[in-house]
Amino acid sequence: MTTSVSIIGGSGYGGGELLRLLLGHPNVEVKQVTSRSHLGEYVYQVHPNLRKRTQLKFSDPAQVEPVDVLFLALPHGEAQKRIDAYAALAGKIIDLSADFRLKSAADYQKWYGEPHAAPGWLGKFVYGLPELHRAEMAGAKYISGVGCNATATNLALLPLVKAGLIDLEQPIYVEIKVGSSESGAEGNAGSHHAERANVIRTFSAFGHRHTAEVIQELGVPNVSLTMTAVDLVRGVLATAHARVKPGVANKDLWKAYRAAANENPFIRVVKEQRGIYRVPEPKIVAGSNYADLGFELDESNGHVVSICAIDNLMKGASGTAVQCLNLMMGWEETLGLEFAGLHPI
Amino acid sequence: MTTSVSIIGGSGYGGGELLRLLLGHPNVEVKQVTSRSHLGEYVYQVHPNLRKRTQLKFSDPAQVEPVDVLFLALPHGEAQKRIDAYAALAGKIIDLSADFRLKSAADYQKWYGEPHAAPGWLGKFVYGLPELHRAEMAGAKYISGVGCNATATNLALLPLVKAGLIDLEQPIYVEIKVGSSESGAEGNAGSHHAERANVIRTFSAFGHRHTAEVIQELGVPNVSLTMTAVDLVRGVLATAHARVKPGVANKDLWKAYRAAANENPFIRVVKEQRGIYRVPEPKIVAGSNYADLGFELDESNGHVVSICAIDNLMKGASGTAVQCLNLMMGWEETLGLEFAGLHPI
Amino acid sequence: MTTSVSIIGGSGYGGGELLRLLLGHPNVEVKQVTSRSHLGEYVYQVHPNLRKRTQLKFSDPAQVEPVDVLFLALPHGEAQKRIDAYAALAGKIIDLSADFRLKSAADYQKWYGEPHAAPGWLGKFVYGLPELHRAEMAGAKYISGVGCNATATNLALLPLVKAGLIDLEQPIYVEIKVGSSESGAEGNAGSHHAERANVIRTFSAFGHRHTAEVIQELGVPNVSLTMTAVDLVRGVLATAHARVKPGVANKDLWKAYRAAANENPFIRVVKEQRGIYRVPEPKIVAGSNYADLGFELDESNGHVVSICAIDNLMKGASGTAVQCLNLMMGWEETLGLEFAGLHPI
Amino acid sequence: MTTSVSIIGGSGYGGGELLRLLLGHPNVEVKQVTSRSHLGEYVYQVHPNLRKRTQLKFSDPAQVEPVDVLFLALPHGEAQKRIDAYAALAGKIIDLSADFRLKSAADYQKWYGEPHAAPGWLGKFVYGLPELHRAEMAGAKYISGVGCNATATNLALLPLVKAGLIDLEQPIYVEIKVGSSESGAEGNAGSHHAERANVIRTFSAFGHRHTAEVIQELGVPNVSLTMTAVDLVRGVLATAHARVKPGVANKDLWKAYRAAANENPFIRVVKEQRGIYRVPEPKIVAGSNYADLGFELDESNGHVVSICAIDNLMKGASGTAVQCLNLMMGWEETLGLEFAGLHPI
Repeated sequence: MTTSVSIIGGSGYGGGELLRLLLGHPNVEVKQVTSRSHLGEYVYQVHPNLRKRTQLKFSDPAQVEPVDVLFLALPHGEAQKRIDAYAALAGKIIDLSADFRLKSAADYQKWYGEPHAAPGWLGKFVYGLPELHRAEMAGAKYISGVGCNATATNLALLPLVKAGLIDLEQPIYVEIKVGSSESGAEGNAGSHHAERANVIRTFSAFGHRHTAEVIQELGVPNVSLTMTAVDLVRGVLATAHARVKPGVANKDLWKAYRAAANENPFIRVVKEQRGIYRVPEPKIVAGSNYADLGFELDESNGHVVSICAIDNLMKGASGTAVQCLNLMMGWEETLGLEFAGLHPI
Repeated sequence: MTTSVSIIGGSGYGGGELLRLLLGHPNVEVKQVTSRSHLGEYVYQVHPNLRKRTQLKFSDPAQVEPVDVLFLALPHGEAQKRIDAYAALAGKIIDLSADFRLKSAADYQKWYGEPHAAPGWLGKFVYGLPELHRAEMAGAKYISGVGCNATATNLALLPLVKAGLIDLEQPIYVEIKVGSSESGAEGNAGSHHAERANVIRTFSAFGHRHTAEVIQELGVPNVSLTMTAVDLVRGVLATAHARVKPGVANKDLWKAYRAAANENPFIRVVKEQRGIYRVPEPKIVAGSNYADLGFELDESNGHVVSICAIDNLMKGASGTAVQCLNLMMGWEETLGLEFAGLHPI
Repeated sequence: MTTSVSIIGGSGYGGGELLRLLLGHPNVEVKQVTSRSHLGEYVYQVHPNLRKRTQLKFSDPAQVEPVDVLFLALPHGEAQKRIDAYAALAGKIIDLSADFRLKSAADYQKWYGEPHAAPGWLGKFVYGLPELHRAEMAGAKYISGVGCNATATNLALLPLVKAGLIDLEQPIYVEIKVGSSESGAEGNAGSHHAERANVIRTFSAFGHRHTAEVIQELGVPNVSLTMTAVDLVRGVLATAHARVKPGVANKDLWKAYRAAANENPFIRVVKEQRGIYRVPEPKIVAGSNYADLGFELDESNGHVVSICAIDNLMKGASGTAVQCLNLMMGWEETLGLEFAGLHPI
Repeated sequence: MTTSVSIIGGSGYGGGELLRLLLGHPNVEVKQVTSRSHLGEYVYQVHPNLRKRTQLKFSDPAQVEPVDVLFLALPHGEAQKRIDAYAALAGKIIDLSADFRLKSAADYQKWYGEPHAAPGWLGKFVYGLPELHRAEMAGAKYISGVGCNATATNLALLPLVKAGLIDLEQPIYVEIKVGSSESGAEGNAGSHHAERANVIRTFSAFGHRHTAEVIQELGVPNVSLTMTAVDLVRGVLATAHARVKPGVANKDLWKAYRAAANENPFIRVVKEQRGIYRVPEPKIVAGSNYADLGFELDESNGHVVSICAIDNLMKGASGTAVQCLNLMMGWEETLGLEFAGLHPI
């Protein structure tokens, strides 16, 4: 007995990756995938990896039929306008956009620069990071997406904050390096290969919108995210700089990070003394749902560097959405997310 | 009831990829993976994508226990020296190296520059390309590996040769573009990133060893392979130039290529009139076992361009080896090879 | 006493590279650089490498003042519409576009799909490749540009054709690998970094427009150009496959290639027996005006592989245009073109 | 009347780049370039960009003749062992290694882990960053090299420190992203292209040796350098996080950065409101001697982000060494360093 799902907005990168995962999910049948701009085309014409995997064509977003679970993978700002209509189609909704991540309409307006179109819905959504809200997700009706940079940051800081190891009065600087798929399938002048190749481009020194999700979820008001684009397609590496509380030592960090890995199937600790791969690296998790964590503590001054590597389209978006589906439905958390990643790549 | 397998030589790229596939294969249990240089290390220290997937450590190649199927992933020239010993350990062997690909000891000496150490074994191996030898593989005891460049070429030419569409008296020029993983996990001066990055380097104009496999398998003596390294880790694109026989038209080619895709689960034809992905591209098949084929015919002069894109470590090595395992054991041909590849990447 | 020059169309890649060269040219003063879309902006806002090199702003193409030499760097099809007006502004014109490369209006229509707007001007331009037309350039008034792929092909074949070494009855297949700057500064869906990165994409099997320039200039009707995009910004590598005439040996090829290098300051022969850099590679000539040539002859069957590496924006466009300027003005041929290229890169 | 120079240690990346610059320098004649491992080879066999530029062969380091200026481009630790012998060969020495950068033998031992072999020489060298020691360089006999990461950091912080704008009691975190040429021409397992490609690898969280040069030169004891390797060959981007003193505003920063650009020919400020290139980027300065600076101030909390982009082999090593030569000899500071960099690249 399969669960029926449809995807609203399937021609973007998040939607395509979600479709790939759902087509391979043993408990799920994909009914419809919509796209206005590619209406009537085979989905494999846009997502060429899916050739010979599905004969689905993109359907009209105005003609979506009722299903068990509806995934929304629309550009930010779209889902909130039609959320009532979507709720009429499915008892359960997982939204990948930024529309229902923040709890406060005021915060939404502050960070997104305009009032929220459906503020009454903000409280109905569980924030979609299982590592923070696993229990609430069991049986939940509505789950939001996560920002990819927020996720890398939240998971980098999670062991430190949960165990109370860092001084929250001190500034936390998070340096985030990202690939080009993060800005979506719609190109712009700056994403032209001849301009975007070979870059190390700090395009945002602070004030990135995903900061709001970190402050809300971890309660760390002094956090700042600095964004640097590098020459890669998939991947986010967050390097967080903070100060531990007096007396915190390496063994305390080991304990906190190991706990995170033990409690969460997709968290791994990478901290080796030899070999090529001693630290978390985004390329190793490309295509997988893993979040690899590492850390270093300078005991001379309490400076802790915490690192998290994820695939922005997987753990930072569609992979986590499928993980939420599994939890929402009471299935094995890792179902449909078994791909291990590649080496070399 | 699972089938027990071991891998001799598991620290290289082919061995690592094979291990990833076998760990995810539902019918198989991996018993041992050997490595002399990494003896005692966890396999995930060398293949970091396998962290949290297996607690196997590299074991001593001299202490391999009997299993149902033995995979050999050794450097070329090694397997032939100990093939009798390996045959004593397992009733079935799949060798990924070049040692048992050629049928003729004289050909081996010609292309590899030294006499074969076990010429009596050459006739016992089925050449390991299912698209050419599927029937023979059912119940076979010994299957050889395939050369990655040979595979891209053999599959690019397969529809043309099988349907008798090209003039074999004319030269066939195959231009092959390859990534850096093809040369293996052992680096050299030329593989240093600062030298290897950004290259378009035609390192072999003709005479590549894999040519022997194309001549043997397709019966095309006038074929020449030209090798060019480009800035990519995984992937091979073979572009074959030939001349069709008089009267051969586009519809004949369509028929031949469609037949290849219909008869072979991992062959796809990519020939679109619109969109970004109109032709086969290696990056789209990275991590998957697909071979994507395309073609263009210049009807003014009979020049046909046939293209094949594969992942050199998958369809060009370990993926095909698992496909051979499936056929040898009478299992579903695609078992354990379901990963669709990623987009974007 | 400097020569005054202006550039019509300076915001594209060819125009920007031309400007860089002319700003560093000791005999030249740049008066105006035009751009409709960037009118009034500092040129360094578009070409950031020129910051602190010039305070020029883009001026209106409708307000160009008379100068000694006018460079046209417009999109193809534009220069021919206003060539009379441009000729009224300057006694000498060097056009980088495709508009005046072909001698025959019929050929232009065949390859470019529309009638030429100023067919009477076609005969007035010298084809802009100094290695073929050096003598005619001395004192010439009008010199055309060159196609980058045509140039790589023309120079790869030049020693062979000039010395009469190859059989022109046989097909000549030229496999050309190119970077992303070749398609210009205007991006499209396929040039988006997340799609264009990591590609090996054979986007044109035959019929590329630059073929016309090779046929015209070398008299090789059986030539075919196959275009493959790879992950690089600057660079073209042409690998030409042909058959030598009976009796032609390696020493004949050496003689022909050495002669080309001796007669042309920007041609080098790269054919080493050891080291990392044994063959021509585009990255080594990036930013320079060199064309590096190499070859291999299979004496068993007469198959010759001739290779040419250039920077498509330098020797394939703007560098050659400055070389033409030098010859046209009677200056040292290498003036302003001294940059050696970088290693590593 | 030219100045004679020789390079001890010319087969590495720094030595090669230095040779390229000196061959193009109008006041200089290169006499010898040494290499033990490439003895007798043409320098263009190792540095292929120099083909047709010089017929020099690598000579024996034991047979160097007296010259006006001797450049030392040896691996760290070598120059200090033979500094007396080198001083006997030339009245002026510029050393690119780390051997004579630190003033204190104790500091050297602390950061390099072994005692200095010629501590008496430490005081004789001027630290080789012209932006800090221009006046002392006029007529100096001995000038040290600079660390590339130290240089990116020193120049990122220079305007802030010089104008007294930041609170030196607060931690300064500098996130440095680097290309693969930084680790030199000798590869290792981790520099193999298949492993090094696509990386975002934080290989050093703190404690990098170049930190010593920043502390010494700027007097900022609370500085920490975090090193991340990315997929690029040439380039360093330093992103420094600090806190301004109370009351410091954007206009104060503008004043300080503009002053730096006005006083130093190779410093540029890049801070644009539109276009693709709004911030400093290493690729734009590749091959040039520029250091591009940018900044952002979060006035809500005093967080300042200061950015510096350089080419590690140019401004971070050989370019600065030639700039030092010019100052030492009383020549125009920019002589031989005119290359503007490329766009696109």
